[in-house]
Amino acid sequence: DLPLTIIAGPCQLESADHAQMIAGAMKEACDAAGAQYVFKASYDKANRTSLGGKRGMGIDAGLKVLDGIRQSMGIPVLTDVHTEDQCAVAAQAVDVLQIPAFLCRQTDMLLAAGETGKAVNVKKGQFLAPWEMPNIVEKIESTGNENILLTERGTSFGYNTLVADMRSLPQMAQTGYPVVMDATHSVQQPGGKGGSSGGQREFAPVMARAAVALGVGAVFIETHQDPDNAPSDGPNMIPLGQMPELVATLMRFDALAKANPIKI
Amino acid sequence: DLPLTIIAGPCQLESADHAQMIAGAMKEACDAAGAQYVFKASYDKANRTSLGGKRGMGIDAGLKVLDGIRQSMGIPVLTDVHTEDQCAVAAQAVDVLQIPAFLCRQTDMLLAAGETGKAVNVKKGQFLAPWEMPNIVEKIESTGNENILLTERGTSFGYNTLVADMRSLPQMAQTGYPVVMDATHSVQQPGGKGGSSGGQREFAPVMARAAVALGVGAVFIETHQDPDNAPSDGPNMIPLGQMPELVATLMRFDALAKANPIKI
Amino acid sequence: DLPLTIIAGPCQLESADHAQMIAGAMKEACDAAGAQYVFKASYDKANRTSLGGKRGMGIDAGLKVLDGIRQSMGIPVLTDVHTEDQCAVAAQAVDVLQIPAFLCRQTDMLLAAGETGKAVNVKKGQFLAPWEMPNIVEKIESTGNENILLTERGTSFGYNTLVADMRSLPQMAQTGYPVVMDATHSVQQPGGKGGSSGGQREFAPVMARAAVALGVGAVFIETHQDPDNAPSDGPNMIPLGQMPELVATLMRFDALAKANPIKI
Amino acid sequence: DLPLTIIAGPCQLESADHAQMIAGAMKEACDAAGAQYVFKASYDKANRTSLGGKRGMGIDAGLKVLDGIRQSMGIPVLTDVHTEDQCAVAAQAVDVLQIPAFLCRQTDMLLAAGETGKAVNVKKGQFLAPWEMPNIVEKIESTGNENILLTERGTSFGYNTLVADMRSLPQMAQTGYPVVMDATHSVQQPGGKGGSSGGQREFAPVMARAAVALGVGAVFIETHQDPDNAPSDGPNMIPLGQMPELVATLMRFDALAKANPIKI
Repeated sequence: DLPLTIIAGPCQLESADHAQMIAGAMKEACDAAGAQYVFKASYDKANRTSLGGKRGMGIDAGLKVLDGIRQSMGIPVLTDVHTEDQCAVAAQAVDVLQIPAFLCRQTDMLLAAGETGKAVNVKKGQFLAPWEMPNIVEKIESTGNENILLTERGTSFGYNTLVADMRSLPQMAQTGYPVVMDATHSVQQPGGKGGSSGGQREFAPVMARAAVALGVGAVFIETHQDPDNAPSDGPNMIPLGQMPELVATLMRFDALAKANPIKI
Repeated sequence: DLPLTIIAGPCQLESADHAQMIAGAMKEACDAAGAQYVFKASYDKANRTSLGGKRGMGIDAGLKVLDGIRQSMGIPVLTDVHTEDQCAVAAQAVDVLQIPAFLCRQTDMLLAAGETGKAVNVKKGQFLAPWEMPNIVEKIESTGNENILLTERGTSFGYNTLVADMRSLPQMAQTGYPVVMDATHSVQQPGGKGGSSGGQREFAPVMARAAVALGVGAVFIETHQDPDNAPSDGPNMIPLGQMPELVATLMRFDALAKANPIKI
Repeated sequence: DLPLTIIAGPCQLESADHAQMIAGAMKEACDAAGAQYVFKASYDKANRTSLGGKRGMGIDAGLKVLDGIRQSMGIPVLTDVHTEDQCAVAAQAVDVLQIPAFLCRQTDMLLAAGETGKAVNVKKGQFLAPWEMPNIVEKIESTGNENILLTERGTSFGYNTLVADMRSLPQMAQTGYPVVMDATHSVQQPGGKGGSSGGQREFAPVMARAAVALGVGAVFIETHQDPDNAPSDGPNMIPLGQMPELVATLMRFDALAKANPIKI
Repeated sequence: DLPLTIIAGPCQLESADHAQMIAGAMKEACDAAGAQYVFKASYDKANRTSLGGKRGMGIDAGLKVLDGIRQSMGIPVLTDVHTEDQCAVAAQAVDVLQIPAFLCRQTDMLLAAGETGKAVNVKKGQFLAPWEMPNIVEKIESTGNENILLTERGTSFGYNTLVADMRSLPQMAQTGYPVVMDATHSVQQPGGKGGSSGGQREFAPVMARAAVALGVGAVFIETHQDPDNAPSDGPNMIPLGQMPELVATLMRFDALAKANPIKI
């Protein structure tokens, strides 16, 4: 098994400089710890809780920034798409297309993403059981694309709360595709602050570690140098300054987990 | 308060004849009971559980059928849209645009639907608390459109199960907009049959009656002359033959509820 | 079908005078509306959220008060028991023994309650599916006692929240025993205030009305002349002053529901 | 931090020989791996799903067996109590009294258990949030007993299903008391087989490992040489033959977790 991949970056793109600063810091942390690294950021937040929430740079400017990171820094890049049409466009600039959780059952999006030939990371909907993921995988596979990742990002648990069911990770791994733990969205409190989502940032490392101990392929973490002033998802992002130590710790658990694979 | 509206029809359009047959039968049942009637059917099932599920007639043929019902039968028509682009197109043929539950937070869809000037019925996501609906209302209102309906269709409750929280109905009514109870989707068992959703058809009248007793503006019911052989949502649709009695009973509760309004 | 029974009273006994005052007011309201009435109060709150919560008068003094209401006012009385031993003792003084929700699977309690020959009202645990109730019924029936009531009081829904699933009512009715809707506990927010439970008093009439429309045999409501200063369950109790109108309204829905029985 | 404790044994006592066989095998496995070991078994299953479920040896015979293991094998012993009265009796024979999840808020039981001076392990109710545990701790501490353990055993998640929220472990650890992960009950499917509970045995090692990676003090595991023929909890017990390898693996994660403590 390959060493753990860290998929990390700010929730949304703020500027080219900002993206490069975070990508650089994360790349350094991952190199130091022996982790593979993929930069993540969104060019558009298409489903903000409220209309007033900042949506980001937009697709044109955003993809330029992402492509720049890929080209100039040699770092693979992931971004999320929001419509069928965006798939082919975004595929020009990134290595991994991500299907947002709310959209994980939209057949045409899955097909359009699959048809780009790029890797497709599907976030399991908050309303979906892990054993429903094979149906989604099959939609993408129908395009001939078998470069698929499946992400746990928490399941609805009452109102304004998610719970991350650890059973989901080995369950989804039975598809044969790499499983990703989204450590920061699974501690979100959707809509929990009225006009925006709350979050329990302090539990994100808990989720990451538990998942890595179970042998996941990657951990997805949103990070920011100043989460409390980030334009989105501040309450659940991990401060950038804490990432080197977190990544180093996760790699220790990853080595142990890969040496002791769990089977269900 | 106006008498109850029944929004009803087959899950998906099968043919012009089939749609007219159901619209005609429902219109008759509603007229007999004193209910207002809106025909409902989908031209595309864009988020089927699995790739093999039938998706329907498609937008061109489907809108033609819907427009036909409106023009020739004088029955108002509702259909669901799946992308931003479809809003303006569908608005030519129908009276109410419906935003599917999974898409209820997609800002651009809500704006595009609002901008048509048509009535917009938003299904509350299975992952959303009722008190988050004002954020969604505000997105639509920002287009100047105040012709909005809000629908309860069940909330995620563990895996493969929904629960309809009756508190949601008066809670959403506090927005000032009419509230709709989706009696058949709230008894769905999403993904519960592996490659398709299960359902508890027998509880749909239970949900409808409880909601009507609380004074909702409308009830949404999918119906089919032969649910077990319908191309989608068979397990939760109510047989067409049971609709006249159901509608008549609901109208009795509606009259009592409207005479005894509940306040929270 | 018999007209609706209202099971109502303060969460806990405070004094003989207080109990009689509430019993008298409720009796008057029920007589006026044509409802049957059963007085309810606890002599001990055995599972308060925190140690500091008031537990009540205790079993000896409490049963004396309950027996007094029965004897002097001719009103049937219900109280909850907390151990096997209390069943036979409480049975001397009351008409209905109630098994608390947390204890609904304690076999020896169910048997001891059944053996008294008194009616036994079992509250469905917050952790129990409605279709598990036949197992509980069978435990009581094994004592030869077939005087059983089954109560819905909400199901765990995430943390600190309950949801009342309306499907539960006709589902439990399939046992053949009367079903009770606990309108005030199902809107509790368990532990929601840290050292005590919160509640959404405003939704209790919502729950009551929805359930009555479905044809339940009884509604259980905790009430107090001054809920905000009651020793327990204040946040979810209905003010006594609102009860006459609520009971009258419920009876209108009861008459309609009994004339239009729902079947699943 | 001390090395991990394994609390393990059969769900219910079957005979002295059987208990000793399992205690011996587990002791050997734990010694080999460097784990501390506590034998666990119940003398009575007081809340079986249905009346027909086997309840076990009873308190007199059962405590004799437990005391024998303690005396003759030098292994500490844990058992669960079901009434206030049983606390003092069981305390004669065991080292740890366990409060069952359904009973975790029964004040008198908590006080009676605390007053024995023995260690008290409280299973967090399926209906309780982790942040409610300080209220329970305080009840026990009021007796002067500060020898307390807190156990996560899963939380209600829809019907017939539990979910183990990993956030609960560091959250409960904030009380300062050792936290236990119940790996086998948290994968139970309560009432899932109609007259008895189902379970997902294959996920018990998943739960155990995730929890150990987070640094819990102990793991609770029910085990049996032939789970499919055990008198209770067969579907979720781990076969005894798999325990040596499981314990050895858990100890590797324990060492890493204790060297990398997680803080929230």
